[in-house]
Amino acid sequence: MDIHSPNVASKADALALRYGSDAMPAAGPWNEHIALLLSHRSVRGYRPDALPEGTLETLIAAAQSAATSSNMQTWSVVSVSDPVVKAEFARISGGQKHIEQCPLFLVFLADLSRNDRLAKANGAELEVLPYVETFMIAAIDAAMAAQNAVVAAEAIGLSTVYIGALRNDAARVGELLGLPQGVVGVFGLCVGYPAPGVTNEVKPRLPQAAVLHHGTYDHAGEPAHVASYDEKLSTFSGRFEMGQTSWSGRVLNRMGKLKGLAGRERLSGVLKAMGFPLR
Amino acid sequence: MDIHSPNVASKADALALRYGSDAMPAAGPWNEHIALLLSHRSVRGYRPDALPEGTLETLIAAAQSAATSSNMQTWSVVSVSDPVVKAEFARISGGQKHIEQCPLFLVFLADLSRNDRLAKANGAELEVLPYVETFMIAAIDAAMAAQNAVVAAEAIGLSTVYIGALRNDAARVGELLGLPQGVVGVFGLCVGYPAPGVTNEVKPRLPQAAVLHHGTYDHAGEPAHVASYDEKLSTFSGRFEMGQTSWSGRVLNRMGKLKGLAGRERLSGVLKAMGFPLR
Repeated sequence: MDIHSPNVASKADALALRYGSDAMPAAGPWNEHIALLLSHRSVRGYRPDALPEGTLETLIAAAQSAATSSNMQTWSVVSVSDPVVKAEFARISGGQKHIEQCPLFLVFLADLSRNDRLAKANGAELEVLPYVETFMIAAIDAAMAAQNAVVAAEAIGLSTVYIGALRNDAARVGELLGLPQGVVGVFGLCVGYPAPGVTNEVKPRLPQAAVLHHGTYDHAGEPAHVASYDEKLSTFSGRFEMGQTSWSGRVLNRMGKLKGLAGRERLSGVLKAMGFPLR
Repeated sequence: MDIHSPNVASKADALALRYGSDAMPAAGPWNEHIALLLSHRSVRGYRPDALPEGTLETLIAAAQSAATSSNMQTWSVVSVSDPVVKAEFARISGGQKHIEQCPLFLVFLADLSRNDRLAKANGAELEVLPYVETFMIAAIDAAMAAQNAVVAAEAIGLSTVYIGALRNDAARVGELLGLPQGVVGVFGLCVGYPAPGVTNEVKPRLPQAAVLHHGTYDHAGEPAHVASYDEKLSTFSGRFEMGQTSWSGRVLNRMGKLKGLAGRERLSGVLKAMGFPLR
């Protein structure tokens, strides 16, 4: 088999990039698969180059191989190549040009309509459809499938970025894709080769101790973990992004004011109109 | 690097196991990473054998390497080893004994409380917290993280199964784990070595054409795809599970009646009580 794992680092290097050399977790098993996972970075600028033939089908085979709740398979995906539609998606997403640049743009869907059609064809109704639980199953199914697609893409030297901002106007996304009732775009995914000069570095995350709890939830050490991470992310953003911003600063900026939701504060009503009453 | 990919099949074999030889998608790029993804199967019976040292930390490093919406990192995870708690989780989940058997049981959490604490420490409030959108971000973050942990586990020869049935009683799960307001268990994950004799086969999925749409959503061919898949899953379940059941039969059985939700029809109210008003 042809193994091609771009940009993977050694174990120590990979953990140091992800956590900083002062916060590396205990050493555990390691191989090239894990190195690939650790090497993930989101990329927001693409070359127009076409992908190898069959790439879409390979990514979807990986996606369909993820677990799905009770094998109900309550997700679907639309591959979008029309430049007009992609431009409209970029606009909805607050001007994310990479949606227009990338050669493959996927919209992952929470999809209860397929199972509903199947039931109706059998003269039955599905009582569980209106519930929050069932919407959650569909959204989580879609997320796990998409994550497998991302790993598959990175495994063959491609880059990706998720576009949650499609939810800024989920109704319009539904119109553009011709979605029936009971189907909603959960997020988009850009796939392609990074453009030259685009920031393409592993972003540090919170120390494991801030995220991983043993037995019961315990946040006693959290202020120290956040303080250390604030410093780390300031340095990172100073190197690669506009200005030095701590993680705390970013959280307050993104989550503090309702305008940070950029339309998504209306999502509950939009979902109801699209066939998800969230009962 | 030490590459260890158990049970991976050749490209043609892997696609035939996943789709049936009559429904194989167009050939695309292939390597050992993609073979690993295609080889996934959920396993519902475990040996008690301990995992290699550092396995938990490696899985969490993989999980934290997944994308997270705006780097807000709105998820956490609890590792549970107390046999009394695991037995209670098995009970909540409708008697899933593998929760008690597996040497590593993780509960993935949608966690808005960490960012809320951070804001309060800075004398601020996060206006976005009560919205459906923010809950969705947290649940999707958790799902993508967990899927990376699953891939990492399978990469080192371990097996897994997600336990969505923890949501049968999310409030009790919260009590057992000491979860603060704004934190909820989204699903569990068993990790371990398969017990001898446990069914451990790749389950066929719907044909790609039933799930993948080009440009716009189009379900014209769906009845034929479902009919062919019904037959495939009947054969599979006849070989490995109790009786021959078509996929349509399973969908109607699982989603037709409210009792299929096994308590999860109350999830909306439970979430509200746990700090997710789903506005």
